Amino acid sequence: MDNRKVGVLGGGQLGRMLIEAANRINIQVNVLDASKSPAKQIAFHDGHIEGSFKDSAAVKELAQASDVLTVEIEHVDTQMLEEVSKQVPVEPSPKTLTIIKDKFRQKEHLIAHGVDVAESRDLEGDEEGLEGRLKEVGKSFGYPFMLKSKTEAYDGRGNFVVKSEGDIEAAKKALGGRPLYAERWAEFQMELAVMIVKTKDGVLSFPVVETIHEDSICKLTYAPPRNVSKETVARAQELAKKAIAAFEGKGVFGVEMFLLKDGKLLVNEIAPRPHNSGHYTIEACPVSQYAAHLSAILDLPIRQSDLRLITPAAIMLNILGGQTPDSHIKVAQKARELTSSWPHLYGKGDARPGRKMGHLVVTASSLAKAEAEIQPLIDFVDEQKGKPLGPRNTHAEGPQPLVAVIMGSDSDLPVLRTGLDLLRKLDVPFETRITSAHRTPNWLKEFSETAEDRGFKVIIGAAGGAAHLPGMCASWTQLPVIGLPVKATHLDGVDSLYSMTQMPRGEPVATVGINNSTNAALLAVRILGAHDVDVRERLRKWMEGNEEEVLRKDKELHEKGYEAYLKSMGK
Amino acid sequence: MDNRKVGVLGGGQLGRMLIEAANRINIQVNVLDASKSPAKQIAFHDGHIEGSFKDSAAVKELAQASDVLTVEIEHVDTQMLEEVSKQVPVEPSPKTLTIIKDKFRQKEHLIAHGVDVAESRDLEGDEEGLEGRLKEVGKSFGYPFMLKSKTEAYDGRGNFVVKSEGDIEAAKKALGGRPLYAERWAEFQMELAVMIVKTKDGVLSFPVVETIHEDSICKLTYAPPRNVSKETVARAQELAKKAIAAFEGKGVFGVEMFLLKDGKLLVNEIAPRPHNSGHYTIEACPVSQYAAHLSAILDLPIRQSDLRLITPAAIMLNILGGQTPDSHIKVAQKARELTSSWPHLYGKGDARPGRKMGHLVVTASSLAKAEAEIQPLIDFVDEQKGKPLGPRNTHAEGPQPLVAVIMGSDSDLPVLRTGLDLLRKLDVPFETRITSAHRTPNWLKEFSETAEDRGFKVIIGAAGGAAHLPGMCASWTQLPVIGLPVKATHLDGVDSLYSMTQMPRGEPVATVGINNSTNAALLAVRILGAHDVDVRERLRKWMEGNEEEVLRKDKELHEKGYEAYLKSMGK
Repeated sequence: MDNRKVGVLGGGQLGRMLIEAANRINIQVNVLDASKSPAKQIAFHDGHIEGSFKDSAAVKELAQASDVLTVEIEHVDTQMLEEVSKQVPVEPSPKTLTIIKDKFRQKEHLIAHGVDVAESRDLEGDEEGLEGRLKEVGKSFGYPFMLKSKTEAYDGRGNFVVKSEGDIEAAKKALGGRPLYAERWAEFQMELAVMIVKTKDGVLSFPVVETIHEDSICKLTYAPPRNVSKETVARAQELAKKAIAAFEGKGVFGVEMFLLKDGKLLVNEIAPRPHNSGHYTIEACPVSQYAAHLSAILDLPIRQSDLRLITPAAIMLNILGGQTPDSHIKVAQKARELTSSWPHLYGKGDARPGRKMGHLVVTASSLAKAEAEIQPLIDFVDEQKGKPLGPRNTHAEGPQPLVAVIMGSDSDLPVLRTGLDLLRKLDVPFETRITSAHRTPNWLKEFSETAEDRGFKVIIGAAGGAAHLPGMCASWTQLPVIGLPVKATHLDGVDSLYSMTQMPRGEPVATVGINNSTNAALLAVRILGAHDVDVRERLRKWMEGNEEEVLRKDKELHEKGYEAYLKSMGK
Repeated sequence: MDNRKVGVLGGGQLGRMLIEAANRINIQVNVLDASKSPAKQIAFHDGHIEGSFKDSAAVKELAQASDVLTVEIEHVDTQMLEEVSKQVPVEPSPKTLTIIKDKFRQKEHLIAHGVDVAESRDLEGDEEGLEGRLKEVGKSFGYPFMLKSKTEAYDGRGNFVVKSEGDIEAAKKALGGRPLYAERWAEFQMELAVMIVKTKDGVLSFPVVETIHEDSICKLTYAPPRNVSKETVARAQELAKKAIAAFEGKGVFGVEMFLLKDGKLLVNEIAPRPHNSGHYTIEACPVSQYAAHLSAILDLPIRQSDLRLITPAAIMLNILGGQTPDSHIKVAQKARELTSSWPHLYGKGDARPGRKMGHLVVTASSLAKAEAEIQPLIDFVDEQKGKPLGPRNTHAEGPQPLVAVIMGSDSDLPVLRTGLDLLRKLDVPFETRITSAHRTPNWLKEFSETAEDRGFKVIIGAAGGAAHLPGMCASWTQLPVIGLPVKATHLDGVDSLYSMTQMPRGEPVATVGINNSTNAALLAVRILGAHDVDVRERLRKWMEGNEEEVLRKDKELHEKGYEAYLKSMGK
C-alpha cells in the first residue's frame, strides 16, 4: 500500500494475524520477539528484531527500523515507550497503555469519563492489613466478590473469586504480594464484547458479540449475540464507543462488558489492541480487526460500513491446549471433519493446558445453523477435556423459532393443528402463544413490539368473530403478519375474513381462507423461503409430493372408472 | 495440521495465496522460484529453493525437501516431473499436466470423455502450408474464428481472432512458428467458470461464477452469475465435474465455459491448479480454493458443504498493472476509499501494463448492492486506463427487481398505482407485467415458474371477478404470492376476495383488502423486510410518519373543536 514499516512489540498470535492482514496490502511488519515466534513465521524479511519486548535497547532498535510502533500486549514498559514516542509514533499512545495496563487505574479513568463499571475498592497497603481489608470488603460488597490483581492479569490469571470469609486465606495465598483491588460481583445474564476502532477522526464500532468464558478463558464468541434485542446491541456499541473515546491514541480496542439481569450494561475490561473476542472478524467482516488496526495506526481510509457482518451468523471457538502436546492438532483435524471452517493454528509448537493454540470460525445463514454445525466439535473438545456432557448450553435449547403463532383464544388451537403439524413436518421452528386483542391488549402489544428482536421472521394470527388480533399485531410490528380467519358461531367466518382483509391502508394482514391453517402455515414457509433456499427446497419437495398424489388418484380414477372409485371411497 | 511439507513449482500469486491457506494450518510450503518471489515473502523458513521451476536439478532438490509436490503453473517440464513422481507424489499427476498444458490435446481428451467443447481443427504442419490451411478453416468455420497456440498460452497471449481472410497475414505474423489450432467462434451470451476439487474420493464443486474478460484477461467475476437460472448453474457444475473426472490426480482445477445463446454449455479451457476465477472463494466460501487444493493433495477432509457461499454475493476485480509502476497501489488505495474490501496485493514490485498485481473482493447482501458498491471503483480503473466511460455493463441496468407485480388486465393498473408509488417511495425495485390466467395461461405459467430464478422474492397479483391469477401463479411457484382483489362490475369485489382467500389447502394466496394496493405493497415490503434490515428500517420510518400525522390531526381536532375541524375539511 505504501512504503511505511510497522514495528510490533510481541510476536504471538495477535501479531501473526496482524501480519496476515499486512501481507495482503504489502506493508512490512517488523516483529520484536524471539526468533521463530508465531508472527515472524509468516513474514520473510530482514526487519525483525530478536529479543524481548521488555528490553529497552531492543525496543529502540525496533523503533529505528519502523515508521510507527504498536503492541500486541499491554504489559510493556510504557515509560520507555513514552521515551521512544519522541522518535517515532507509538499507537495507541503510551499514556493510554499506562492507564489500561493497570486495571484499577483503567476503571478510575472510565468512571471519571462517565462510563459505567462494576463497583471496585482499592486494596493496596501493608500486607498484614490485607486480611482485615478483605473482610471489610466482604461485609460491604457481600459474597462472592472478585479479588483482582491490578497488573499482569489476563485469561483469568490474577483473578480470584472469594466465595465466603473462609476463602480469604486461600485468596491471600493466591494473589498476596501483588497490587490488588476488589470488585463487586456482577449478576450478569451474559457477557458481551465489542471491538472499537479509534482513528484520527473518531471511533467506529464492530458488531457486538456474546462471549462465553470457561475457567476464566474465552471459549466461544457468538456474532450476533443470542437473544439480545437490537436496542441492547445499540446500547452496548454506544457504551463501548464512549469508553474508548476516553483514551488517547489510535488503533483497535476490545471492550468487554456485562449485561446485567436488569438490562444494565457495565464495562468489565478494556484491551488496547486486537482481542480474542474480535477474531471472528477475519471471516465475518469485510475488514478484520487486524486490518482495522493497521488502517487506524497508518491513517488509511476506514469506514463504519467496513465493519459489518457479511454473513448472518459466526461462532468462534478457541482451540486451547489440552493434556497432550498435540491436543490442538487433534481439535483442528476434528474441526475439518465436523465443520466447514478452516482453522487458524498459531504455530506455537507444543500445547500446554489452557494455552491459546488456535481458533476457528463457523459461519452460517442463521445462528441456529451455526450452533448445530459447531455443537459436535464442542462436544469433542469437552470430552477431551474430561468435561461431563449434558445440558451444556442454556441459551441454545432447540433452534430459534422463526414463526410466531398467536391465537386469540385456546378455542382456535384445534383449527391451527393441521398447520402446526405441517410447520413441524417442513422443519420450520415456531412458537405458539395465546394473546387476545381485547382481553390482553397489553400483552399483545408487548409481544408484537418485541417479536422482531426475538428473532421471529413472520407471525400467524388466528382469530374468530371481530378478529382484531392480526390487525392490531400488524400495527405494532414491521414483520409480515398472516391472518387466519376462524369460523365462529355466526356468519360462517366471513366476519373474521372481512376483519382481516379490510384493514386500513398502512397495516396489511396477509389473509388466507377461513379455517385453512394449512395455507397459513404454507404462506409462512413461502415467506421464509423467499430468502432461505433450504426452506424453499423442502417446500418444493412437499409440493411435488402433492402433485404426485393427485396424479396417482387421477390414474386410479381413469383406470377404475368412477363407480369403482366412489366405492373405494366408501361413498 | 501435521508435519508434511508441500513443495510448489512457482512462487507467484497463486503460490502466495496457497501459502496463506497453509500458514493457517501450520503446513510448511517450500517454494521453488527466485528469492523474494511473492510466495516466499509470507513463509519464513529455510525450506525454499532458489532457482527456476524449469530447472530439473532444482525440482529434484525441492522434491527431496518435500512430501508432496504441486504446481502453480502448468507450463512445466512434465517429463521431468514424471521422473520425480517416482520419488515423491506429484499432484495433479504429471500425466494430467502433460495433457492439459497442450490446449489441443486437452480438447481431444475432453471430447474422448464425452465433454462438450468448441469445435477445433489441428493446424500443425509445414509453415508454408499454414496460409492455405487457415483459408480452409475460414471456409469451413466461417469468420471470425480463433487461432490459438497449443502451448504456453495464457491471459490471451497465444490467441488471435481471425475476423476475415484479410487477417490471415497478421495472424501468421503473430503466432507463426508455434504449434497452432483453430477453434470455431462460440456465440456465447456469457462466460462462466467453476472451480472443481478432485480428491482421492471424487469431485466436488465450488459455486459457478460469471467471468468478464477485457483484452483477453479476466477483469471481473460475479458469484453467483447474473441472470442465470439455477438449472443452468446446476448444468455448469455437472459439466465441470464431468470434465475434471476425466483426468488423473488430485487438487483443484479451474473450468472455464461458454454459455451459448441457445443455453448450451461448452468447456473452453481447463487449468490444473488454483485459478483467477476462484480468488473470490477466500472471502466468500468457508474453505477457499487454496485451502481446498491443500486438502485434496494432502488427503485432508473436505466436503461439498465447505464450498458454499457464506455471503449472498461476491464480486472480484483484478488489479492489473497500468501505465505507471505504482498504478496498482493507486487502485488499492482507491479501493479502500470506495469499497469495503481489503485488497490482495501480490508483492510483485513494479507494475507493467496488464500484469496481474492484485485483486479485491466486494461482498454484499445482494448482487445489486455489490454492483453498486464496486461500480465507482470500476469507473476509476477504466478512467485510469483511458477507457471511455459510458454504458459499461449491459447486465446491470438498474437494481434487480425484487417484487413482481402482475395483473390480469391493464384495467387493474389504476388500482395498483398507489401501491406502486409506495414501493418506489420505499426504494423497493419492482417489475410490472400483464398476464391473464385465462387469456394467456402459458405466459402466466412461464412467468411464475421462472420468477424465482429471475431473482424475485415476492409476487403481487391483482385481478377482479373470478380472479384466478394469484392462485394459479401460487401453484407454479414457491414464492409468496400476495392477492389484491380488484372491485369489478358486480358483487363489489367480494367475488375476487373469495377467489383469493378460499384457495385449496396447499397453495396459499396472501390476500389483502379489496382495491387496497397500498396494503399489497406494504405486505411485500414486510416480507422483504423480514430478512433485510435496511428495508425494515425504511418501513419503520414510514410507519412513524403515519403515526405522527394522525397525532397531529388529533391535536388539531382537540384544539379547534369538531365544528371548526369539519369546516377546515370543507364539510
